[in-house]
Amino acid sequence: MLLITGASSGLGAALAKQYVNNGPMTLTGRNESRLTAIATNLSQTLAKEAPSIHTVVADLSNESSVIKLFDQLSAPPNMVIHCAGSGYFGALETQGVAEITQLLSNNVTSCILVVRELVKHYKNQAVTVVIVMSTAALAAKAGESTYCAAKWAVRGFIESVRLELKQSPMKLIAVYPGGMDTDFWPSSGKSLDSSNFMSADEAASMLKQALVATEHGYIADITIQRG
Amino acid sequence: MLLITGASSGLGAALAKQYVNNGPMTLTGRNESRLTAIATNLSQTLAKEAPSIHTVVADLSNESSVIKLFDQLSAPPNMVIHCAGSGYFGALETQGVAEITQLLSNNVTSCILVVRELVKHYKNQAVTVVIVMSTAALAAKAGESTYCAAKWAVRGFIESVRLELKQSPMKLIAVYPGGMDTDFWPSSGKSLDSSNFMSADEAASMLKQALVATEHGYIADITIQRG
Amino acid sequence: MLLITGASSGLGAALAKQYVNNGPMTLTGRNESRLTAIATNLSQTLAKEAPSIHTVVADLSNESSVIKLFDQLSAPPNMVIHCAGSGYFGALETQGVAEITQLLSNNVTSCILVVRELVKHYKNQAVTVVIVMSTAALAAKAGESTYCAAKWAVRGFIESVRLELKQSPMKLIAVYPGGMDTDFWPSSGKSLDSSNFMSADEAASMLKQALVATEHGYIADITIQRG
Amino acid sequence: MLLITGASSGLGAALAKQYVNNGPMTLTGRNESRLTAIATNLSQTLAKEAPSIHTVVADLSNESSVIKLFDQLSAPPNMVIHCAGSGYFGALETQGVAEITQLLSNNVTSCILVVRELVKHYKNQAVTVVIVMSTAALAAKAGESTYCAAKWAVRGFIESVRLELKQSPMKLIAVYPGGMDTDFWPSSGKSLDSSNFMSADEAASMLKQALVATEHGYIADITIQRG
Repeated sequence: MLLITGASSGLGAALAKQYVNNGPMTLTGRNESRLTAIATNLSQTLAKEAPSIHTVVADLSNESSVIKLFDQLSAPPNMVIHCAGSGYFGALETQGVAEITQLLSNNVTSCILVVRELVKHYKNQAVTVVIVMSTAALAAKAGESTYCAAKWAVRGFIESVRLELKQSPMKLIAVYPGGMDTDFWPSSGKSLDSSNFMSADEAASMLKQALVATEHGYIADITIQRG
Repeated sequence: MLLITGASSGLGAALAKQYVNNGPMTLTGRNESRLTAIATNLSQTLAKEAPSIHTVVADLSNESSVIKLFDQLSAPPNMVIHCAGSGYFGALETQGVAEITQLLSNNVTSCILVVRELVKHYKNQAVTVVIVMSTAALAAKAGESTYCAAKWAVRGFIESVRLELKQSPMKLIAVYPGGMDTDFWPSSGKSLDSSNFMSADEAASMLKQALVATEHGYIADITIQRG
Repeated sequence: MLLITGASSGLGAALAKQYVNNGPMTLTGRNESRLTAIATNLSQTLAKEAPSIHTVVADLSNESSVIKLFDQLSAPPNMVIHCAGSGYFGALETQGVAEITQLLSNNVTSCILVVRELVKHYKNQAVTVVIVMSTAALAAKAGESTYCAAKWAVRGFIESVRLELKQSPMKLIAVYPGGMDTDFWPSSGKSLDSSNFMSADEAASMLKQALVATEHGYIADITIQRG
Repeated sequence: MLLITGASSGLGAALAKQYVNNGPMTLTGRNESRLTAIATNLSQTLAKEAPSIHTVVADLSNESSVIKLFDQLSAPPNMVIHCAGSGYFGALETQGVAEITQLLSNNVTSCILVVRELVKHYKNQAVTVVIVMSTAALAAKAGESTYCAAKWAVRGFIESVRLELKQSPMKLIAVYPGGMDTDFWPSSGKSLDSSNFMSADEAASMLKQALVATEHGYIADITIQRG
């Protein structure tokens, strides 16, 4: 089973489309109506002998919501793609505290809670956990100070958990996409022309293809750039 | 005027001792009784023509508390040493959500709020802002996943704000100390023998000496290692 | 046309096998007999309407040899995979100067000369240049000090050239494979049991699949880990 | 005894001035006449009870020259400051092979040979080895591709040797200065106005002050920025 978080929009939704005919899938997101709409649309594209699509509304920055999500899974996932997250930008002195707190919660706390739960449940199983960050996790950027804080946090966290999982069959894959042409931008408060950015569908198709493993090895880190 | 955060214990308190005869000083911390005790002790070591020591109890992860702190400053600080922070350790699956949230708040939110306020007020003044992180901000560590998350967040944040301040006389200095022999360890839940770690006094004396600037340059990043 | 350097052994030879039916290919390496043997073997696996395999013996750390290589190309390459390189290991005090000089020459000078020539010739063309380094380019390792020097050099070089090519259609892809089960180890002087490392064929097949691009984006950095 | 490499100009010469009254000193450089001139000048500033200044002409990228240098030392150095190095800049396609080879030799090979010799001789002694790199060792820069290659190499090398010396009393200190107003620029072929850069004397005075250690700790990494 494949679990995709942040599946109600952007890269998460695009990945759901890419994987729809690959087997049973659980989609999770905060927005119930969007999530349902996406699942309904996907169902119509399903091949005949259709695998199931399951949706779970969850707020991943809330512990009991995360615990409930994993309790509801009918089977252990063999792959989890964690796309949940949000953006917030602007010169530091223009940023609001509520938005900053929300940003840390949506990106850092949610990732910690999801990975903690995965490690608790599946540490000894061959689960592939794909963490989608951003190129902002790799380099500092003016106008993105708190967003970089959030994304660097996730990177430091993932690199540390990798060390804890050295003897475990669970694998952590780190993905760093550059800017995509999605709803992320309008909702982040950053006004920019993203029309010739790659689409979420393009990024999702590249990511799906690049997530490859063989008997003795696997692609562990992937940067996806515009251009 | 020198402002030291996290001054009620550890490196912050040790730095207060180092700078006590260098001019007026404002000390801030969460714990009023400890802060007062430290200020009282310091007063007794003051040279004759004594500069003043001012204390402000503040919770730096709370916006109004941070705003009030800066409103109370009698003069713009020429240097701020931000030492506030806390530790929390252990294998990921053993960590509690309340503690994780607290950790992010104490280390990430507090730093963002303090630096945001400094940028708002003093962006166009030659204020030296020293941000004390940890070597955990530079490398991933097993057993310190959420602590590394918090510290990497601060590093990504500071590196980004530096880019925003490129044309500003305000300078951000990044300090990465290794483990010290302080109360940090007992309160972090990590049991280790820190008896031959450097003391906070040693680290503070080194840091004070290394925080040097000339007309056209300054020490911008400092790592302090044990050994 | 695809140009593969370091094609006479290891990952380079394995990539040649992967791409043999994808179009015309030029293979280059220092060892003429091995290079010829590989090309001969590959020719026997060619599909009927066979694309051509061309071989050029070249010492990439020698300027005139590099210039001659590019002069001999019948057509501009649309992709170049630079695999040439060698290893050398051991505690620093046991390393020999001749071997260190050779290591820097084989890994650093050769890469600089190849990329310099590519930039000179094809800066304004949509050439994809894949630079194969090692996970030793990403992290320091005891017993690999000069090898890390060589690989960090290549990474610093490639990251800098990327900045110079920002407006260019030429793309630089960075690949960081972990240890493979190849002749690299015996020839490096490091004795270790590499029998459950991934094979060069595994790494080559993953790399080929992960080297994906769409209209507005591409996979720019890839780490391949054992496990 | 203090050994300074690259002492015939720039930061090395400025450090010699800073340390002249601190005890016996050996200065080494490639240019005999400049080295002698600097030693002669320094002798005139010596305090009455003068420590000795010794000069050794050496090409640090040459093994026998490095071996001879250490054979000539009258006593084991307690500190070595390795400043030797050179610069070379420009868009990649404009760079010459002889200059690139020279750059790698002056910066990478020389550092490897010096540190190898130090480890061979003094691994079990409390020698402080200060390696002066550049901010170009920390970040990629357009127009500095081969210079970044050389400096990243040194950083990867030093970080690896640190791991090999974990149990050793020998300490490696990494120093990353930004651009200084020295002869480095004219000789590097880069034309830029360095008149409001920090002087080598400023950088040397800051560095001397920041190179501080206590019983249980020491400043291990220092970045010196302009501004």
